[in-house]
Amino acid sequence: MILSTIASHSSLQILLGAKEEGFRTRLYVKPERKAFYASTGLADELVVTKDMSAILKDDGIIVPHGSFVAYLGLEAIENAGARFFGNRRFLKWETAFELQDRALDKAGIPRVEVIKPDEVEPDKLYFVRIEGPKGGSGHFIAKGSELEERLAGLSEPHRIEEFIPGVYLYVHFFYSPILGRLELLGVDERVVIADGNSRWPVKPLPYTIAGNVGVALRESLLPRLYDYGLAFVEAMKKLEPPGVIGPFALHFAYDGDFRAIGFASRIDGGSNAPHWYGRLYWREPMSMGRRIAREINLALKEERLEEVVS
Amino acid sequence: MILSTIASHSSLQILLGAKEEGFRTRLYVKPERKAFYASTGLADELVVTKDMSAILKDDGIIVPHGSFVAYLGLEAIENAGARFFGNRRFLKWETAFELQDRALDKAGIPRVEVIKPDEVEPDKLYFVRIEGPKGGSGHFIAKGSELEERLAGLSEPHRIEEFIPGVYLYVHFFYSPILGRLELLGVDERVVIADGNSRWPVKPLPYTIAGNVGVALRESLLPRLYDYGLAFVEAMKKLEPPGVIGPFALHFAYDGDFRAIGFASRIDGGSNAPHWYGRLYWREPMSMGRRIAREINLALKEERLEEVVS
Amino acid sequence: MILSTIASHSSLQILLGAKEEGFRTRLYVKPERKAFYASTGLADELVVTKDMSAILKDDGIIVPHGSFVAYLGLEAIENAGARFFGNRRFLKWETAFELQDRALDKAGIPRVEVIKPDEVEPDKLYFVRIEGPKGGSGHFIAKGSELEERLAGLSEPHRIEEFIPGVYLYVHFFYSPILGRLELLGVDERVVIADGNSRWPVKPLPYTIAGNVGVALRESLLPRLYDYGLAFVEAMKKLEPPGVIGPFALHFAYDGDFRAIGFASRIDGGSNAPHWYGRLYWREPMSMGRRIAREINLALKEERLEEVVS
Repeated sequence: MILSTIASHSSLQILLGAKEEGFRTRLYVKPERKAFYASTGLADELVVTKDMSAILKDDGIIVPHGSFVAYLGLEAIENAGARFFGNRRFLKWETAFELQDRALDKAGIPRVEVIKPDEVEPDKLYFVRIEGPKGGSGHFIAKGSELEERLAGLSEPHRIEEFIPGVYLYVHFFYSPILGRLELLGVDERVVIADGNSRWPVKPLPYTIAGNVGVALRESLLPRLYDYGLAFVEAMKKLEPPGVIGPFALHFAYDGDFRAIGFASRIDGGSNAPHWYGRLYWREPMSMGRRIAREINLALKEERLEEVVS
Repeated sequence: MILSTIASHSSLQILLGAKEEGFRTRLYVKPERKAFYASTGLADELVVTKDMSAILKDDGIIVPHGSFVAYLGLEAIENAGARFFGNRRFLKWETAFELQDRALDKAGIPRVEVIKPDEVEPDKLYFVRIEGPKGGSGHFIAKGSELEERLAGLSEPHRIEEFIPGVYLYVHFFYSPILGRLELLGVDERVVIADGNSRWPVKPLPYTIAGNVGVALRESLLPRLYDYGLAFVEAMKKLEPPGVIGPFALHFAYDGDFRAIGFASRIDGGSNAPHWYGRLYWREPMSMGRRIAREINLALKEERLEEVVS
Repeated sequence: MILSTIASHSSLQILLGAKEEGFRTRLYVKPERKAFYASTGLADELVVTKDMSAILKDDGIIVPHGSFVAYLGLEAIENAGARFFGNRRFLKWETAFELQDRALDKAGIPRVEVIKPDEVEPDKLYFVRIEGPKGGSGHFIAKGSELEERLAGLSEPHRIEEFIPGVYLYVHFFYSPILGRLELLGVDERVVIADGNSRWPVKPLPYTIAGNVGVALRESLLPRLYDYGLAFVEAMKKLEPPGVIGPFALHFAYDGDFRAIGFASRIDGGSNAPHWYGRLYWREPMSMGRRIAREINLALKEERLEEVVS
């Protein structure tokens, strides 16, 4: 059996995990990126092409990640004849504010407050969020008094949120239909350009993500986050049956309380930062990429593959 | 043989380490936290109870951590009939400024300067520290001119310290009476809410700990820290015989020089961030939790268990 | 066969890697640092001496690192009769602005802009960089209007650069002549004293390095960095034949674009932070230290040792 994906976002851990679990691998890669991916030897088959939509006719099991919607579009993914790991209709839930809010509200997970333009106060700080996953690009912080001017030039769909000063934590889950178990596999912080302010505050820096660092969460916070994860899985079972299959991530601001700022409805790039929590469940290192391949193996062994692909 | 602990603080690595070393495990957990801990299967026996003091009658070896004093109180721990890993009279040494200072001074480890209220200068920055381990909650930075007002509302025991701008490093040690060896097993930085200032300085943010990130220390700094660790072990042999058994951590501000800001007289939550230094001593990954279980195994093999429990 | 090095900088991973690959090890250590290094048992032979130049007569293979030039001087290294892993004439390339610039320009890697004193504008921020690897000590940020005064007291060779607000990423490569392959083994961020500004901005803090934290880079950035690595290897083949053998690191500012701020022409201290990228190439954890020992093993097996030592 072959696992296939696109060379970007979190394909390295997907490929490495597939190899660790004994699968063959196929990688679709753009010509200008071939040198790096070829150097690793992780892909048994390297499909070098400018047209990523070639993957939609792949005859293996496709493992989607955060670049799929951007490269292929939701409609093409939903209508493709190929087999995807996970519930492919879940992928759209991170792409619109309205869907994100509906899912979080259904799960009872507290959310960051959305501010209407006429509620803006001049001296307060606000966070302007661009809709959909953009790797942080375009998001910015501004004082209320500056907002009108800064929003004037903004053509992308966006909204104004309260700005929560504190830390931002990204919690990586895997829901296994085969085991009927939710696993909390890691937590990361984003490394963003704006972190440059830690050395010399120049203030208005971009939120573009450069990388991720794993965080060992204060243990007393974990049970609460796990309960949020369970509630999210239950909510998605109702909103998009059969619900979540495999990886998702909940994104939180933490200033003493947790408030969700969004989620990823697929493997989140932050799981590229290795974390030891996988050993809690598996007694061996378990990346999200490997966990996906492991679930396919578990499903194959019980002849239940149709429960984890769509 | 069974190792027992309370579900919080650093119990995950204690349980995982115990399993890795072949022990049975027992975990005391509050009902609202059961879902998460049960999901991992790390505890062979799960005692679900609102009353954590049930552990004081446990018939295994109890591995204490940073939540024990808060949950049970020092007196109950010192008087309990159960067996604890380590020197249980060492636990109190982190709970009071007076004891902390005495231990650090005896070891000759430089400390952060304590400021008397009448020495405060209006334009300088000061750090107000709450007594005892509180996970950072309540600590704050303030200008001298603001101090009187901010201290007026503060009912907890505290003191004023010089504020050292720089990095804060937490060094995790294990002293083995069986091997007669001190091991430096890791270093972490705390992730605190106040780190939110790295993206947009809003200044007076809480110091509450959210998590920990492992740091590979500049290697030239390690021998000095190791010597501080050795001096601390020697000091505690005199101050609280037989002295340290097992884990402790020294906490430092670093601005080019190291000055201690405190210590943990038990496994420190910062050791939840995995670190590779354990491989220096053991040629395999060695968390602090596993190291504790390993020491019990070493002691059992040499029939010296009484040297590592109290 | 014995691998030898000096107790500092990145000797721990060099020794651990050598042991993992089955070599004997010899470590030259100053008396005041002996306690720590002896505690680990990583060195089969411990040469305790105040005079590090004793290593220049070592009969094993010497693995140089970032403290060698400071301890021994370039001339003594280049003229020594002993065998060094790598191309020892490459070591000098990081020690002077002129050589760094020539190598980066030859490779076509964009560099941070150097500012002439008469181009300084009073309100802009500038970065003053001290020549050679100094662990960040002495570097500082200043406004143009403050520069004249601050530079007046500076006796070390230095230059003025544009200040790039953003994140700083250090990319660790290994070039294998035996396999004819460049490996991207890790990325780190420095932990510097100036990071203390993330909790309370006091602004002019030192850039001295305290440690390193591994970063999982945004995957879409990796192919570009890999191409820079390839170009650097090609450039050095022409500039200093036979070119790079083994480890080097490229140092970048990232504010949406990458611009090089320098490089390390030997194992970089930032590779002390463990990283998982080594598993991409080797399917097992592979530190830079271990990778060096692995290359020697590969060379020995093919009787090509002379291609990796000088």
